[in-house]
Amino acid sequence: MYSAVSRVRCTAGRAILSQFTRGCATVQEPSGPAMKTECPGPKTKQLTKEMDPIHNAQSIQFFVDYDKSQGNYIVDVDGNVMLDIYTQISSVPLGYNHPEMLKVFKNDHNLKSLVNRPALGILPGSDWPAKLQSTLMSVAPKGLNMVTTMMCGSCSNENAYKAICMWYQKNRKGRVDFTPEEMESCMKNVPPGSPDLSLLSFQGGFHGRTFGALTTTHSKYVHKIDVPSFDWPFASFPVYKYPLEENVAYNQAQDKKCLAEVEDLIEKYAKKGKPVAGVVVEPIQSEGGDNEASPEFFQELQRIAKRHNAALLIDEVQTGGGPTGKFWCHEHFNLDSPPDVVTFSKKMQLGGYYHNLDMRPAQGYRIFNTWMGDPGKLLLLEAVLNVVKRENLLDRVNKSGAKLKSGLLAAEKEFPAILNSTRGRGTFLAINCKDTKTRDNIVHRLRQKGIQSGGCGDLAIRFRPALIFDEKHADIFLDRFRQVLKEL
Amino acid sequence: MYSAVSRVRCTAGRAILSQFTRGCATVQEPSGPAMKTECPGPKTKQLTKEMDPIHNAQSIQFFVDYDKSQGNYIVDVDGNVMLDIYTQISSVPLGYNHPEMLKVFKNDHNLKSLVNRPALGILPGSDWPAKLQSTLMSVAPKGLNMVTTMMCGSCSNENAYKAICMWYQKNRKGRVDFTPEEMESCMKNVPPGSPDLSLLSFQGGFHGRTFGALTTTHSKYVHKIDVPSFDWPFASFPVYKYPLEENVAYNQAQDKKCLAEVEDLIEKYAKKGKPVAGVVVEPIQSEGGDNEASPEFFQELQRIAKRHNAALLIDEVQTGGGPTGKFWCHEHFNLDSPPDVVTFSKKMQLGGYYHNLDMRPAQGYRIFNTWMGDPGKLLLLEAVLNVVKRENLLDRVNKSGAKLKSGLLAAEKEFPAILNSTRGRGTFLAINCKDTKTRDNIVHRLRQKGIQSGGCGDLAIRFRPALIFDEKHADIFLDRFRQVLKEL
Repeated sequence: MYSAVSRVRCTAGRAILSQFTRGCATVQEPSGPAMKTECPGPKTKQLTKEMDPIHNAQSIQFFVDYDKSQGNYIVDVDGNVMLDIYTQISSVPLGYNHPEMLKVFKNDHNLKSLVNRPALGILPGSDWPAKLQSTLMSVAPKGLNMVTTMMCGSCSNENAYKAICMWYQKNRKGRVDFTPEEMESCMKNVPPGSPDLSLLSFQGGFHGRTFGALTTTHSKYVHKIDVPSFDWPFASFPVYKYPLEENVAYNQAQDKKCLAEVEDLIEKYAKKGKPVAGVVVEPIQSEGGDNEASPEFFQELQRIAKRHNAALLIDEVQTGGGPTGKFWCHEHFNLDSPPDVVTFSKKMQLGGYYHNLDMRPAQGYRIFNTWMGDPGKLLLLEAVLNVVKRENLLDRVNKSGAKLKSGLLAAEKEFPAILNSTRGRGTFLAINCKDTKTRDNIVHRLRQKGIQSGGCGDLAIRFRPALIFDEKHADIFLDRFRQVLKEL
Repeated sequence: MYSAVSRVRCTAGRAILSQFTRGCATVQEPSGPAMKTECPGPKTKQLTKEMDPIHNAQSIQFFVDYDKSQGNYIVDVDGNVMLDIYTQISSVPLGYNHPEMLKVFKNDHNLKSLVNRPALGILPGSDWPAKLQSTLMSVAPKGLNMVTTMMCGSCSNENAYKAICMWYQKNRKGRVDFTPEEMESCMKNVPPGSPDLSLLSFQGGFHGRTFGALTTTHSKYVHKIDVPSFDWPFASFPVYKYPLEENVAYNQAQDKKCLAEVEDLIEKYAKKGKPVAGVVVEPIQSEGGDNEASPEFFQELQRIAKRHNAALLIDEVQTGGGPTGKFWCHEHFNLDSPPDVVTFSKKMQLGGYYHNLDMRPAQGYRIFNTWMGDPGKLLLLEAVLNVVKRENLLDRVNKSGAKLKSGLLAAEKEFPAILNSTRGRGTFLAINCKDTKTRDNIVHRLRQKGIQSGGCGDLAIRFRPALIFDEKHADIFLDRFRQVLKEL
């Protein structure tokens, strides 16, 4: 009935989840989904009613019993056990209650690092440099030698945009000091101190929801409506036809058209007096519909940015940390040189961005805030990375991803009127449904059969399992998926 | 040699800090500062050198031994023991290694709540509603019945600004649904979907460093230079003369002048097509120099905002959580009605904002992000609030604050050429120095004598001790302060 999914030794969580454990040599989890009620069930409905008067409960899917959730399985308050292929919007790397994660704060020093939260920019703990080295720098994208820590994806992008603007102005002015006029005018929000720079983004892109990040987000109106925005340019992003091998010419034309738009917009905004300081792009547009672009697209995009003295920021908030089968998705692209900035969050437990010395402001306190990250989260990341490395989880992602993808392609063939455009890398996969209503219906029905999944864009179901997702979990999903499709 | 500062029973931290402990009935800490080296000392210098190649180390004050820091005392890696009246930019409510904080994650359920981090907007844990009620709602500003959780001060303000814009548009349009034109235009960052609204802020104000928050920040050029900004209005903030009782007419004229500016700017920006959706203000400008304004100023400001259908946001990120002697500083102001939004972070462990139902968007997913806060931080807040309530720490703040303030006033009298303008509430106090160089020199010399303090604005030393700061700590500070002043 219960089986092992990982070779990590189990040292915690035994008491509460005893019904799931068989021994102590492995991470344990249920052998499959088990539904007791519809979902949302009566207890979720009751809790939603309790929460709504004090905190917005409009978007609640269900309330979770995190004590009972285990591995790839999320357990709701009504006792429903679901295979989780959505993992808290792609932010859970090792599943629930991983013994190595539960161990972190049993260590007294780690507990004190968590509880005594420092202002990291001025008063870091004694082991902060060594911990940065052994965690974030141990997985730094090739060619990027520095990191700036933050707390979430939005603030990582916001601060990276600022760093890019500072870098652009340094290059443009050929100096790092400030004139009295710059110092005075910036306090009034006007040039030259607050220059009219812009960041170029893409239709369908998502980079967060704070004012700067939101200006570069173009995935859904519900994110943006009623919020003031900067006048910054955005270009079309390739819209590919699938299967890729049958649509080569069409898709290449998509790349070409979008890249031409990028160059046009950079020139147009330069003339308009709002030069493009940086180009920001996701390696796979993850909220906007899992829209891919080819390695060649990204290579050429980088060349265009370089030609126009703009930085290239690759936003790996959702793609980073392994789900595409490489630690960073842009490693698939064989770029001429490293991107200027790579932002991260989610599976990385805390936010931040990688860069080089050139992207670091010459003066202190320019990229700064009270907390500048969180040592407690870095310690959790340490546990995550140890397991990822020791267990070669990227191999597992590639294997289970291959199995899942071939199953999705088979489903496409069996249900051609409903499904199309299977795509993605590793387990970071998506499949389109014929329309939004059908997609939403499938996600709902999957949940009733014990699969917690999610959509993105208008048509896609996106796959965002944990890195411990295995081939057998792919089988379980595909079986339930087929049941749902047959019932439609 | 060592003494008790709190009546909490000690249940943790004994082994590592045995040299500081005398028994186990109380929180223990050193009896006073003890310096072994200059600060920054040789070990800090070495660690700074190690960190600089991988993470910006320009603003490092010193590296901290958080295992050894205790209560009001911070211990650096060179073994220097300093009385901390700056507390990580005002973000440490109960000092270091408080036994109640160390206990939180010894509880297995709490540990799992920390490690299994949910996407709170869609999949909260079973006890999230009850925990919100017993923590954040138990200290909600009077008249505000809802809370939206976030992670830090900047994102709390950014999201509150968005909520205000949505609220303003709802009132302006008299409807909550969207037109096709609005849905389409917002995706292009243009009106009517992305309307040209503005937030009015104040000179000297600080509300964070992300693009929206930064537009409303006007405290120091180093925060703002090279970063693009919205065209949003900002008014002068009163600049008072001290002592207040000798400058009543002058200070009232300051209020009047600034309030007239506010009203003029609201009218000007309405005509300009960028109506002011909200007015954002700190109850004490905490980064910009601890600039106060009178209760009457805030009362009238609220009336002006109401007259112009603008929301009033009070930013309590630095003032909130007790340091002014009331839980929220604006409780000192006797406003006609509750502010529309109160933002918080720092001492509250996580960010967020209080509001009422009217300020909640009609649709879900409009104020949303992946994490929407952090249950692990809410559990720490629970411990903080339990101690604050049980030990009446607001009383302690008022007593030790009164002692500290009278000592500062005495120092002003003794050193009139150096010091002036003692001000503030509770322990949230400040004193001005004759010039920036003298202020920085005093902060530096205090550190060499075992006092960790900080400046704000151009001239002020700001006092931001923990809520467990006691009268005897005020004595220790005042003694060292006098030594420094005599040496100048």
